[in-house]
Amino acid sequence: MTTPVQFHFDFSSPYGYLASEKLAALAQRHGRSVEWLPMLLGAVFKVTGTQPLTLVPLKGAYTRVDLPRTARFHGIPFRMPSRFPIATQSAARIVVWQRGRDAAHCGSMVKALYRAYFVDDRDISSPDVAADVAAEAGAERAQARAAIDDVSVKDALKRDVDAAIAAGVFGSPYVVVDGEPFWGLDRFDQLERWLASGGF
Amino acid sequence: MTTPVQFHFDFSSPYGYLASEKLAALAQRHGRSVEWLPMLLGAVFKVTGTQPLTLVPLKGAYTRVDLPRTARFHGIPFRMPSRFPIATQSAARIVVWQRGRDAAHCGSMVKALYRAYFVDDRDISSPDVAADVAAEAGAERAQARAAIDDVSVKDALKRDVDAAIAAGVFGSPYVVVDGEPFWGLDRFDQLERWLASGGF
Repeated sequence: MTTPVQFHFDFSSPYGYLASEKLAALAQRHGRSVEWLPMLLGAVFKVTGTQPLTLVPLKGAYTRVDLPRTARFHGIPFRMPSRFPIATQSAARIVVWQRGRDAAHCGSMVKALYRAYFVDDRDISSPDVAADVAAEAGAERAQARAAIDDVSVKDALKRDVDAAIAAGVFGSPYVVVDGEPFWGLDRFDQLERWLASGGF
Repeated sequence: MTTPVQFHFDFSSPYGYLASEKLAALAQRHGRSVEWLPMLLGAVFKVTGTQPLTLVPLKGAYTRVDLPRTARFHGIPFRMPSRFPIATQSAARIVVWQRGRDAAHCGSMVKALYRAYFVDDRDISSPDVAADVAAEAGAERAQARAAIDDVSVKDALKRDVDAAIAAGVFGSPYVVVDGEPFWGLDRFDQLERWLASGGF
């Protein structure tokens, strides 16, 4: 019995979006499922003292070249959203709620929310927009909308974020396989070899 | 006539070392030479407000896992030096001096200095050690040692560092091909496709 691949991500992370488009198929090639674990980079940045990469001098300008190029390289549709970064609590809570009731459809929910933001430029920081997208991905809209304001869902997300930081997660995307960490879509080549060979 | 691939790097950058082991062969496959451009990350960090990645909370711990694993993944010998990071002016000045007198052997000089630090754990921040390594790589030792204290060499390095920052270089390794920037060994897959196809 293999353990799932843990995927830590923030909905405001463009490289997290690109990774979300590749990960499920990669895991499946090696008989693994994916555990979808939204986190909040704002909480991480308080610990690491870092900031969103688009705001770092010089690095921000590079990112605006690298992101669309990396998307083209992988053949993934991408458009930089007009509002960036955004608060991602609404989208993250929907995923936490979805995981609690039907984990098998968590991946399609994550992809739908990510695509709404990074392809269709919809502002998923809005609870109503996030609930709309969840409904389009198969959820019952009123329940998804209510989950965003549900104290038990809020608390579950907080616990997830604290646990991720305690486990050393400092960026998005961040994948853990049997305790081995891989930060960034750039590490998917190493991740694939690790899954194929059980380490190297 | 193709232009050289510009390779910006700091001798204290472990990923820069790993990249130095791959770049010349990669460039050669596409009929390109390499322009070896040492820079000083300390000067960059003042502009970006960032710091050496091993010192960033959480990220530092990850790096200590990722670096040896990335070296194994690429089949490159690597040992984390006992002193890290170090000042790299001495090694950088030797390369600037070497470039001025015999650019064709610059690559072997860079590789020798990088390997001395990241394989043999020799402290190349010392002018005498850096000159020793240069001599082992074919330079006349006394000349290499004198170059480290040569005002014109110092000034040339300063100009290079300022020019790199003005061009947007914020990390190491950082490769530029015909104006297109690629940051990190992680981008060598994109770099290779870019060289093969002239863009994508």
